[in-house]
Amino acid sequence: MQAVVVTPGVANSVRPVEVERPELGPGQVVVRTLQVGICGTDVEINRGLIGEAPPGCDHLILGHESLGRVEGLGRGARGLAVGDYVVATVRRSCPQNCLNCRSGESDMCLTGDYTERGIKGMHGYLAEYYVEAPTWLVKVLPALKDVAVLLEPLSIAEKAVSQTFAIQRRLHWRPQTAVVLGAGAVGLLAAALLRLRGLETYALARSPRGTPASQMVEAMGATYWSSREHPLASLTQELGNIDIVVEATGNAQVALECAAVLGNNGVLSLLGIYPPYSPPQAPVGRLARELVLGNRVVFGSVNANRRYFETGLEHMAEMEGRWPGLLDRFVTRRLTLADFPAALEKAAGDIKTLIHIGH
Amino acid sequence: MQAVVVTPGVANSVRPVEVERPELGPGQVVVRTLQVGICGTDVEINRGLIGEAPPGCDHLILGHESLGRVEGLGRGARGLAVGDYVVATVRRSCPQNCLNCRSGESDMCLTGDYTERGIKGMHGYLAEYYVEAPTWLVKVLPALKDVAVLLEPLSIAEKAVSQTFAIQRRLHWRPQTAVVLGAGAVGLLAAALLRLRGLETYALARSPRGTPASQMVEAMGATYWSSREHPLASLTQELGNIDIVVEATGNAQVALECAAVLGNNGVLSLLGIYPPYSPPQAPVGRLARELVLGNRVVFGSVNANRRYFETGLEHMAEMEGRWPGLLDRFVTRRLTLADFPAALEKAAGDIKTLIHIGH
Repeated sequence: MQAVVVTPGVANSVRPVEVERPELGPGQVVVRTLQVGICGTDVEINRGLIGEAPPGCDHLILGHESLGRVEGLGRGARGLAVGDYVVATVRRSCPQNCLNCRSGESDMCLTGDYTERGIKGMHGYLAEYYVEAPTWLVKVLPALKDVAVLLEPLSIAEKAVSQTFAIQRRLHWRPQTAVVLGAGAVGLLAAALLRLRGLETYALARSPRGTPASQMVEAMGATYWSSREHPLASLTQELGNIDIVVEATGNAQVALECAAVLGNNGVLSLLGIYPPYSPPQAPVGRLARELVLGNRVVFGSVNANRRYFETGLEHMAEMEGRWPGLLDRFVTRRLTLADFPAALEKAAGDIKTLIHIGH
Repeated sequence: MQAVVVTPGVANSVRPVEVERPELGPGQVVVRTLQVGICGTDVEINRGLIGEAPPGCDHLILGHESLGRVEGLGRGARGLAVGDYVVATVRRSCPQNCLNCRSGESDMCLTGDYTERGIKGMHGYLAEYYVEAPTWLVKVLPALKDVAVLLEPLSIAEKAVSQTFAIQRRLHWRPQTAVVLGAGAVGLLAAALLRLRGLETYALARSPRGTPASQMVEAMGATYWSSREHPLASLTQELGNIDIVVEATGNAQVALECAAVLGNNGVLSLLGIYPPYSPPQAPVGRLARELVLGNRVVFGSVNANRRYFETGLEHMAEMEGRWPGLLDRFVTRRLTLADFPAALEKAAGDIKTLIHIGH
């Protein structure tokens, strides 16, 4: 079958190749891949910065944002039927099956020995077929099939927003103002979730107003601000106490400035994979002092477990009802498996590149 | 009456003076001050770095860690009787009476316009008498009167530990290993609270083993490590996944290193008032990346509301039962109002200096 692979650790090794179809094991289903979304993690893997091939294999099939359709069931496979639309989760439990992995929270794996499809030690979904156990697949109703490939990035935003509110059960809290940094797919989806919760939401990105992303922000009743006209440093003056900040740019300088605009009792979630040795060199004393004096929280969030995919589906349905057509507008480019490596080159204004595989 | 005051903003202005006795208003009680503890905040105020006099006053009566005895009741004062031992809380609600102030959480005041006795806009307790409304006073049973002056610093540790566990209701969590940085009063009290919760607890400070503080750590069944022999950088290797870190040194460099030893799903609480422009200049990218990849939380905590004083009293009784004499050992120096300014000079090995006022 056709697939797109990288040689982990080797920069610019992404290529379409022919590989063998995976074998269907007992308790598994075989899924015909329909669409796969491309994100920054795929680009990082192709830079050779992260990524790990399955044991004994010299390549890794890329792709972790998927939509597929069940084509066959292995012996004893339960919970899904041929023809079901499914989105696959990404992370799989660690071999030790730690407290969190065995509690359905592999996203919070304690050991760090988890695997991730398309990223760490397991093949991904950028191929005509994959096999998986139903426990890692989320069934999608046909009504959502045209947008469900966004469910994986939505699950990342779901986790950030959900954890923000879970953390804040620690105090009396009635958040009113939220700021999202970055108008990529995760940032826009986080803004949409915050709007569904009724928050006054500001999405900041570099581009001036008028981009498709800024129009989508406005369509969901949020405010789009260019960070050139509304620098982070002046945000507190403009907005008062900022209750929630979601950092979805992956830029360490922005992450630092975010922490400084966080209001009293506020929560900042960091969602980027920040380059470890990047600037800025910042005075940590000031940051620590402000966290203390305002009872502020900063947390990092990575991956998402099945629960966030499930609430994500509910919220997708709500978004479709409230902002018809909004989710369709996320897809700014539609390509095929043959379009690699070019598919990883992000064009200006691109929000989500989709690879169409089957139908 | 005798009192100890500073002129806010003026370095080294601390002095014993005669001031007028405060007038007892309706609904208030007058309290004879018995003991006041000295802490780093008092030193900062005397450096002129923080501190604010009451409106229309050119001086501030210092002192916020108190034990007193009710000597008289104003008209309509309820809930306390003459002779009751009391510890006063520190922070008072903001004039706007924000959501948190009106919910009994002035420690989480949203507006920042709160006042604090002995620190910000209200006189403290380093005087022979003070008046206060019973709502801000916590009654202490006579059995605890000899150690109850530690209740205010204990409330700071109570809040940090309680918020740590409240935040972690966000996931499946069975913490086993806790590290406390700093063996001052707050650090030692935090270690004691973590021991009461059954955690394997390590207290780190600079001094080699053998100090009174290290003996107290060992008396409570925790492990004392000198950070010279067990540098923070090697802590993860020695201890595995560290679930809880409490930073109680107030040193920004230590705060930074703490964040780096925090285990997966771990929580770091920062309790110091870190100097804003102090080193280190640290690569924020690395810190942010680690927070994300390990789903880690960092939060700041300041002040404590009445609830933490009340749970503090329960835990004090538990400590007295489990480790008899331990709390007495916190007091390493006993002085009087006449001993200022020398009382603010911290001697080596000093844990808590007490000012004895009445009896």
